[in-house]
Amino acid sequence: MDIKINDYIYNQKDKFLKELFELLKIPSVSAQSTHNDDMHKAATWVCSSLKDIGLETRIFSTPGHPIVYGEKIIDKNAKTILFYGHYDVQPAEPFNLWKKDPFEPYIENHYIYARGASDDKGQVFAVIKALETAMALKTLKFNIKIVIEGEEEVGSINLGDFVKENKELLKADLCIVSDGSLTSIDSPTMCVGTRGLLASEIKVTGPNKDLHSGIYGGAVDNPLQVISNMISMLKDKDQRIQIPHFYDDVIELPDSNRKSLYWNDESKIKQYLEISELINEKGYTPSESMAIRPTLEINGLWGGYTGEGGKTIIPSIAQAKITMRLVHNQNWEEIAKNFKSYITNIAPNTVDVEVIIHDGARAYSLSLDNEYYKAIKEKMKQVYQKEPQPTFTGGSIPVLITFEEILGTSVILMDLGSNIDDIHSPNEKFGVKYFLKGIEWISSVISSKM
Amino acid sequence: MDIKINDYIYNQKDKFLKELFELLKIPSVSAQSTHNDDMHKAATWVCSSLKDIGLETRIFSTPGHPIVYGEKIIDKNAKTILFYGHYDVQPAEPFNLWKKDPFEPYIENHYIYARGASDDKGQVFAVIKALETAMALKTLKFNIKIVIEGEEEVGSINLGDFVKENKELLKADLCIVSDGSLTSIDSPTMCVGTRGLLASEIKVTGPNKDLHSGIYGGAVDNPLQVISNMISMLKDKDQRIQIPHFYDDVIELPDSNRKSLYWNDESKIKQYLEISELINEKGYTPSESMAIRPTLEINGLWGGYTGEGGKTIIPSIAQAKITMRLVHNQNWEEIAKNFKSYITNIAPNTVDVEVIIHDGARAYSLSLDNEYYKAIKEKMKQVYQKEPQPTFTGGSIPVLITFEEILGTSVILMDLGSNIDDIHSPNEKFGVKYFLKGIEWISSVISSKM
Repeated sequence: MDIKINDYIYNQKDKFLKELFELLKIPSVSAQSTHNDDMHKAATWVCSSLKDIGLETRIFSTPGHPIVYGEKIIDKNAKTILFYGHYDVQPAEPFNLWKKDPFEPYIENHYIYARGASDDKGQVFAVIKALETAMALKTLKFNIKIVIEGEEEVGSINLGDFVKENKELLKADLCIVSDGSLTSIDSPTMCVGTRGLLASEIKVTGPNKDLHSGIYGGAVDNPLQVISNMISMLKDKDQRIQIPHFYDDVIELPDSNRKSLYWNDESKIKQYLEISELINEKGYTPSESMAIRPTLEINGLWGGYTGEGGKTIIPSIAQAKITMRLVHNQNWEEIAKNFKSYITNIAPNTVDVEVIIHDGARAYSLSLDNEYYKAIKEKMKQVYQKEPQPTFTGGSIPVLITFEEILGTSVILMDLGSNIDDIHSPNEKFGVKYFLKGIEWISSVISSKM
Repeated sequence: MDIKINDYIYNQKDKFLKELFELLKIPSVSAQSTHNDDMHKAATWVCSSLKDIGLETRIFSTPGHPIVYGEKIIDKNAKTILFYGHYDVQPAEPFNLWKKDPFEPYIENHYIYARGASDDKGQVFAVIKALETAMALKTLKFNIKIVIEGEEEVGSINLGDFVKENKELLKADLCIVSDGSLTSIDSPTMCVGTRGLLASEIKVTGPNKDLHSGIYGGAVDNPLQVISNMISMLKDKDQRIQIPHFYDDVIELPDSNRKSLYWNDESKIKQYLEISELINEKGYTPSESMAIRPTLEINGLWGGYTGEGGKTIIPSIAQAKITMRLVHNQNWEEIAKNFKSYITNIAPNTVDVEVIIHDGARAYSLSLDNEYYKAIKEKMKQVYQKEPQPTFTGGSIPVLITFEEILGTSVILMDLGSNIDDIHSPNEKFGVKYFLKGIEWISSVISSKM
């Protein structure tokens, strides 16, 4: 433990939290166009916070939400680290399940509650405060660049083009991303693999209007029945995805990895989520199924009358939002094509079926022999005072691939949150200790040469 | 054609329409509690319109929406007809599919457009104007009673108790209901059978909150996947309903009836609804499937994120509204029991599944030898100038059973609307000619002895 770093952080704690609360109060929901003004407000706020600690800053506009950039060049010969985070958040709906307003942060039992507290405002702000710490203590050993975007929760639509167009500006020896979770502060982990993503939507259109189900029931096919039938054909009873060639490119991990890499106590999951049984792909444990195997989830499904009371109709339209998580070596564009033709094949000719592919990203994985990884892991051990375990996580961070492929640098995840932060859910939270330890860890990394 | 009746109606036409528009402007949506005041407004309006033409009236309050009652006793020895209609309407959602405000009636191409124009405000008001006509012309041959309820669209929850408690008051020789459609004004039909109904809801609860699908996908069962799987098991590929014993009590109609009783041109349905293929239960035509066979429809299905953009979650809850249409001799309570246990049997133990039965009603059928039916059919022939055909309709009018069973009278349907009125759908309409012919037909029936 570095006493100077530790002292600085604990002296500044109240100021750090006060500032973070300001950021959490801005409802920067990138998916909802009603929040466009809030997106600009959040970008401006983040930019100021970088300028305040002494970085050169700039806001890049994009066809979507703006990207904030900052840099501190200490020495042309020093190595350069590029940090990445995002200031946008997931929609907060359903609001009624939140104990308090999702954009009025508060602390309860040592947790900060707010939409974005952990994903990713709390974590990206920990990076900024780590930069502040190292700069205030004059221990900074790297040139620093930082990119904070506003479209992570909608698939980082414009980030790829931005990185391509600014390759020279963003040139770095190492890229660090803080946008995930370690198992717990007492058993630290470093993520060395995330799943890829394929986001799609299905729209089934039957009759040209909602119909009286008494008059037409039996003769006119029901889009809700059709979409349910099709969804039931996406997986079999063994939880195997039925899209042709879906598993063709999946490379099995060696048994040793399967044993060492999974990270959740299954009975704890059941207790925490109040469910009596988990599921699993045949041949894999639930923990493996949720981290190292590809999956398919229905994220939303809707059609017909969903209000109070009843309405005896055959609806005109049924819709579903479907995402898949992909693993190392799967090609999302290939799978998107096979998904489209599978759905088209199983659709009856009584309705029109449209498949929309929104976006995709391949999976990420890091070699355990990477030198930067080994150095950062060593710092983590010192700060968290326990040997960190490498893990795979089931989530997707497509930007890892963007940076790796376009900039040609190693990308390393320094996740600061916890498994039970309820990101994307009501009552999202971030432990105050996690926030402070995170600042300490990042400060330590950038305060010593690698 | 009775010249006097015809003259009176065509002289009063503008007044009749003006009055009907007043009623259509009241948004009396029984299913939505925000409209409770409108329900009282509509009841009061209907009551006044009965009083204005010379009936004794009374409003009965119920635990739900009030029931309007009116009567005109001309002679203790005369036969009594009890009319029935309802002043409540279906929800108007989705509003964006209406060309104009559903509660701002207007006439276009000789059709009155408004929620309730045909179902049932337009029809029950035609009954009232027929009473006015016969009373004004002093040709009324029957004692008249009329019940107009406000809960037909929510399953007539309190009507049964009301009829039971007021058996003496409602005593009649014949009950007439105008709440349906004839095939068209040029090919008149009289409905001699309607299907029964069973209304239910399924709620599937998985984890205690919406989850990040990347973190938990693969290990935690998805309520939307589960509900889709279960819905897909409700019917087989032959459109046969899979609930055990579902068809046990169904009595097949003789072939002669099957040939004479169905009523729709299948190519016209496809053209009207813009669909390329109809469905049918194996062994029955689409027209038979939609009128004389039991069916099951998903009226609404929802869960997860359904807003703009994406949200990568496993939702906590999935819900579906399901109704069945039952035919002659099927017992809805028995089927409700079998449905519940079937759903419970096919539900996986990874989720909680709740089945809620809302209400039910058995089917109605009338003998073609009924004397009243024959007399009313003869009047229809005179007014519409063509031989009416008896038909079965797929809809459900549980009140027919209520009156038949509790009062022990014949119940006859005098449907005034048309197949293409889009009842329960956006842009509901009612032909001005249908409205006026309906008044004429009912006036003729009550102006001559049966």
